[in-house]
Amino acid sequence: MASTIEVRGAADFHVHLRQGTLSSLVTPHVRAGGFSLAYVMPNLKPPITTTDMALRYKKDLIAIDPHVEYLMTLYLSPDLTPDEIRKAKKAGIIGVKSYPRGVTTNSEGGIESYEVYYPVFEAMEQEGLVLNLHGEVPSDANTNTCVLNAEEYFLPHLVSLHERFPKLRIVLEHATTRAAVEAVKSLGDTVACTITAHHLALTVDDWAGQSFHFCKPVAKYPSDRRALQDVIRQGHPRFFLGSDSAPHLVSAKSTATPGQGCAAGVYTSPVLLPLVAHLLDSFGALDKLQGFVADHGRRFYASPDTGSVRVRLYRGKSTIASVLRLGTDEVAPFWAGKELQFRIDD
Amino acid sequence: MASTIEVRGAADFHVHLRQGTLSSLVTPHVRAGGFSLAYVMPNLKPPITTTDMALRYKKDLIAIDPHVEYLMTLYLSPDLTPDEIRKAKKAGIIGVKSYPRGVTTNSEGGIESYEVYYPVFEAMEQEGLVLNLHGEVPSDANTNTCVLNAEEYFLPHLVSLHERFPKLRIVLEHATTRAAVEAVKSLGDTVACTITAHHLALTVDDWAGQSFHFCKPVAKYPSDRRALQDVIRQGHPRFFLGSDSAPHLVSAKSTATPGQGCAAGVYTSPVLLPLVAHLLDSFGALDKLQGFVADHGRRFYASPDTGSVRVRLYRGKSTIASVLRLGTDEVAPFWAGKELQFRIDD
Repeated sequence: MASTIEVRGAADFHVHLRQGTLSSLVTPHVRAGGFSLAYVMPNLKPPITTTDMALRYKKDLIAIDPHVEYLMTLYLSPDLTPDEIRKAKKAGIIGVKSYPRGVTTNSEGGIESYEVYYPVFEAMEQEGLVLNLHGEVPSDANTNTCVLNAEEYFLPHLVSLHERFPKLRIVLEHATTRAAVEAVKSLGDTVACTITAHHLALTVDDWAGQSFHFCKPVAKYPSDRRALQDVIRQGHPRFFLGSDSAPHLVSAKSTATPGQGCAAGVYTSPVLLPLVAHLLDSFGALDKLQGFVADHGRRFYASPDTGSVRVRLYRGKSTIASVLRLGTDEVAPFWAGKELQFRIDD
Repeated sequence: MASTIEVRGAADFHVHLRQGTLSSLVTPHVRAGGFSLAYVMPNLKPPITTTDMALRYKKDLIAIDPHVEYLMTLYLSPDLTPDEIRKAKKAGIIGVKSYPRGVTTNSEGGIESYEVYYPVFEAMEQEGLVLNLHGEVPSDANTNTCVLNAEEYFLPHLVSLHERFPKLRIVLEHATTRAAVEAVKSLGDTVACTITAHHLALTVDDWAGQSFHFCKPVAKYPSDRRALQDVIRQGHPRFFLGSDSAPHLVSAKSTATPGQGCAAGVYTSPVLLPLVAHLLDSFGALDKLQGFVADHGRRFYASPDTGSVRVRLYRGKSTIASVLRLGTDEVAPFWAGKELQFRIDD
């Protein structure tokens, strides 16, 4: 097996770059992790709900690291109108992210029903904007809904949105279940699916009592993890990487207070490309790396690689940093202190 | 509704009283929580594997609080012989606890297969000792086994043990699933089941990212919690309280280190009786309190109430302490800082 792999135009189609000092800390990690494109999530405080906010945010990110292509998104909310969609399109905004209310970080303003947004989706379909779905329904003991089946119970919404808006490009984000993989496969070419790196590694056992492995959607059964690995091994063109790399301060990930929950999120950006190579290699899919981390997503998003950014991975041990700092801000990467079988050529 | 409830001879048929300073801190909480009988788990370091060790441990507990009746158990391991079972019986030991290897606190020496223990079980059946089962199989990705189905996958072992030893009294400990409730119901009168207080309150959502709610077996789906509540509401005589109250130092419950898991266990002893009353009241089973916390278990264990210990519960708000200390040792009770609708008359 070759000891070097060249990856062209690696693109992370789902990443949280935060704001303020934390953004200054984590934004450079996109490139450090081997990536030249970042599809940026809009769940800031306040959420990015308008074109103007998105453009200001993009300017902030460019000021931190100008060598990454930032694709911007808006946060789906009642503020969003068809007119704003047309304005967003002209300004180069790529997509709109939908968060069900209250299911993850800064999603208190998330949506409760999709019908009210049909005029917005129609405008998106016409303008060619992408709808990015956090595919979970809120927990409800009366319907036996909890974090374990919240994704599966969301899938009928995906199916009906696709039926209603067959030309609207939709991405089911960070799929974690066999049911989600099968649903996306069964739908048309306008429906795609991102998979994170960490969901290729974790099951429910790994976040049971281990807060640094806790994220939403939660990792599920071994058979679900297997389904995610299988669809990558098959090289399915509508499945591609969206890391959902979601940094939180180490203090917010530690749960030192009885009864108080920690922040949801796993931080993979700083080691993303070596990590994905390591994982794909572990389940016999290393030959699908270029497709999974670049080509499939770029094709779906019609965002071709300019050809200028190539990263070389070497087969050779590297140890993941235990913590990354800027001033007093500290974040801990996924698998902190663990060894990977690949490293990036410096 | 009466504002006072008298509970006679409350008995906790599954409790961890630890060793050393921690034992001095938590053992008095049995009585503070309204209980006069403690069925004591043997998973110390080293585990309680002989009659002599159990008697020494009992002496230690009596020295801390002589006003509680301690029923002692042995840890099932290759050290245990039919002769030791006969010796244990003569010394007043009540049961033998089986831990599958590696599934919970101090279970590294747990069992892997039951057949090797058949001679021990035969002796237990003859002598009238109770077999207490931690009913989980170890996780195994190849069989899709994880913390969520580890209990359900254990149930065939329970069924076959009961078939093989129909007169052996067996308790499936801390049941967390509808499947477990149905299995126990379907078996004969020699098979019973304990239910903890916290599994009447928690689902998987509650321990997702909240380490103080993490215990083994983990709390599962809302429908599983409902099944536990239902069988109590039915007043089924083979289901009774075993708190599995499992104190760990606050430092061991906090997960401040990336990737490192916290200790499994929820600590309910200090507030157990008011907590159970509060919970049973919340799902319309307060009239089953005496049976659930005393009569059913005492009947199964042939351990009648001497009639001397009565505790009066008042309907009235009480706030759970946020932390309990002895020297530098700190433990945090379940629902620390929360309000209960019942309190014990001092």
